Amino acid sequence: MAAAVSPLAPSNFPEMPEIAGVRMATAAAGIRYKGRTDVLLALFDKGTTVAGVFTKSKCPSAAVDWCRDKVKAGKARVLVVNSGNANAFTGRTGRDAARYTAASAGKAANCKPGEVLLASTGVIGEPLDARAFDRMAAAKPGHFEAAASAIMTTDTFPKGATATAKLGAASVTICGIAKGAGMIAPDMATMLSFVFTDAPIAAPALQALLAKGVLDSFNAVTIDGDTSTSDTLLAFATGAAAARGAPPIARAGDPRLKGFVKALDAVLKSLAEQVARDGEGARKLVEVIVEGAASAKSARRIAMSIANSPLVKTAIAGEDANWGRVVMAVGKAGEPADRDRLSIWFNGIRVAHKGMRDPNYDEAEVSGTMKKQVIELKVGLGIGRGRDRVLTCDLTKEYVAINGDYRS
Amino acid sequence: MAAAVSPLAPSNFPEMPEIAGVRMATAAAGIRYKGRTDVLLALFDKGTTVAGVFTKSKCPSAAVDWCRDKVKAGKARVLVVNSGNANAFTGRTGRDAARYTAASAGKAANCKPGEVLLASTGVIGEPLDARAFDRMAAAKPGHFEAAASAIMTTDTFPKGATATAKLGAASVTICGIAKGAGMIAPDMATMLSFVFTDAPIAAPALQALLAKGVLDSFNAVTIDGDTSTSDTLLAFATGAAAARGAPPIARAGDPRLKGFVKALDAVLKSLAEQVARDGEGARKLVEVIVEGAASAKSARRIAMSIANSPLVKTAIAGEDANWGRVVMAVGKAGEPADRDRLSIWFNGIRVAHKGMRDPNYDEAEVSGTMKKQVIELKVGLGIGRGRDRVLTCDLTKEYVAINGDYRS
Repeated sequence: MAAAVSPLAPSNFPEMPEIAGVRMATAAAGIRYKGRTDVLLALFDKGTTVAGVFTKSKCPSAAVDWCRDKVKAGKARVLVVNSGNANAFTGRTGRDAARYTAASAGKAANCKPGEVLLASTGVIGEPLDARAFDRMAAAKPGHFEAAASAIMTTDTFPKGATATAKLGAASVTICGIAKGAGMIAPDMATMLSFVFTDAPIAAPALQALLAKGVLDSFNAVTIDGDTSTSDTLLAFATGAAAARGAPPIARAGDPRLKGFVKALDAVLKSLAEQVARDGEGARKLVEVIVEGAASAKSARRIAMSIANSPLVKTAIAGEDANWGRVVMAVGKAGEPADRDRLSIWFNGIRVAHKGMRDPNYDEAEVSGTMKKQVIELKVGLGIGRGRDRVLTCDLTKEYVAINGDYRS
Repeated sequence: MAAAVSPLAPSNFPEMPEIAGVRMATAAAGIRYKGRTDVLLALFDKGTTVAGVFTKSKCPSAAVDWCRDKVKAGKARVLVVNSGNANAFTGRTGRDAARYTAASAGKAANCKPGEVLLASTGVIGEPLDARAFDRMAAAKPGHFEAAASAIMTTDTFPKGATATAKLGAASVTICGIAKGAGMIAPDMATMLSFVFTDAPIAAPALQALLAKGVLDSFNAVTIDGDTSTSDTLLAFATGAAAARGAPPIARAGDPRLKGFVKALDAVLKSLAEQVARDGEGARKLVEVIVEGAASAKSARRIAMSIANSPLVKTAIAGEDANWGRVVMAVGKAGEPADRDRLSIWFNGIRVAHKGMRDPNYDEAEVSGTMKKQVIELKVGLGIGRGRDRVLTCDLTKEYVAINGDYRS
């Protein structure tokens, strides 16, 4: 399953500055992958706060259970991520493995196990060997590309994004990495993302910013509608910028956060888009925009119904502006809609209007635009002011091959 | 796109007796397909009652709008089905076409347009030419295989089922035909089914029986989770058996209907299973059983979440007993579930138990059973007594090819 890099990949990994108070190391534990790193260790200075958003699955992984509990206290000293071991659905064994890994890492880093955050993706299985933590001594600032590479599974490129903002008189930095929804037998889909900043933000405020930030980034991306049991987004704020004059922030509503919120949202959106660009087998990035819905919530549901429709996604893979399938997906969403008010555009070209094929439909023009790598599919419902946007990719034979061929 | 017959097809079309009071004819209108029939005309004797169940799409086709309205009066003299023209999302033109077709057919059959029922599947487009109704004079009893063939689109085999029951002292017959969820560019998924009986059943009673009958048949089948704008199930009761002593039935709760209900349910279930067996690109029929859920409704939602999961379906295509993905699909359903109580079986072989891989898991045994054409995937939730069952098929590269390759 040698995966070529996605044709939708950015041309290069961004230049990412160090974050004061964060050191990182990667290791090759060889749990599943040979000849590559598969463990990421991040060490945080004392005083680092943490926030997290997790899968809504009713059957979350042991690592998710662990983090959801520990994030409540809001303190972090270590992050351990391994990409060779999903540690999900392993009952008591899974819980024991999480506890063991946190205890080993805490011992190596001289902190409490409860200050160790865990994430894993890959094969279901064994606890991380304590030897994995020998690399902690080598942890250094920076290293984001190496970190992003160590957490990959079926990803075809490492994903990173960075932004800076003014906080008071000081400049603060945000760096984030992510891995996409990738499955390898017999594993589960997993989206992991870790965001680091030197801004001094209290844990409850960070939690509020993160929860809001995912709504139009990670929660607005779908590859196949399947939700991982391990999806994890963690944000760490070291507070190191306080020494350079950044004011400590206690509340998410603090007006001084304006620039920071914008920068955080930009990082989250960039990472989410990179996940869509690396959808398994993806050849096209699809931006679904729904306008004129009864409400924003209704627009989101309709956009997701379109973005998750196998028929819409296969049509786009076939470079076919099949608006009939878009109508189908609007109709099945169960939200207020009126067939005779629907308009549909592909890349700004209106193909259907008021319940009929657009009178100016130009087959050659439409065929031409469908060959592009990025497709903007816009639906106007014409019944209200609700608007939303989600990202997805096309559904290709490669998706089926990646997820179904490993035994045949 | 020469489709070989599905490997899951029954060995032959069943022997189906005539239904007194029903005559049928097929025609080759050549709307889309060449060298095959694509129009079905069914004529019913006076006194025939009709009931219907339709797509829940908020953007239904013009034919669905028409039938939903006409079924209220409960009387039918003609059914017109064409498989070359979906007539959906065509606004006023669509409505006009439906009205024109019903008027033409009513004129040819000497009945009111409101006693003409319509269904269509195939290309979006033009009204049926009045000449299509010249064939009415040739309508004859029987002909179910020809009728089932005329309504096919991407189906690879015609679908029929029949059953008899005692009603009072008389024997009554039910015959049904169906076409499956098949898409051809630039069309929409459509499931059509028509059921005919000589039992004398009043329209409101027939409606109640049909609405109940679909719950565990057509509504318990999913191919890709996409809902057609044209899904239509119509039942016609000629009442001809009254002449042989069958008692007229006014209420669905009439205890004399017991045998009839059983026969009707058997016909609907058989047709629904045939639809699953002809899922686009299907190589395996998958029966998803959920037990021990909080309620039957909860069991249905979880079963549908599993049956619609691209990851579960590609795993089954790959002959992989990937219970991790089943856990994922249970978790994403949002229904009450407890990872540590879950058990999962493939064809009766327990692969996971109480949150862990089954201690007796035998790789060779499990691999062997996954090679079968019919896979029973059972999930025990262990939290209640809710149970349900749905049918689906695997997700193969052929599905993507059928729905995405036509332009490439």
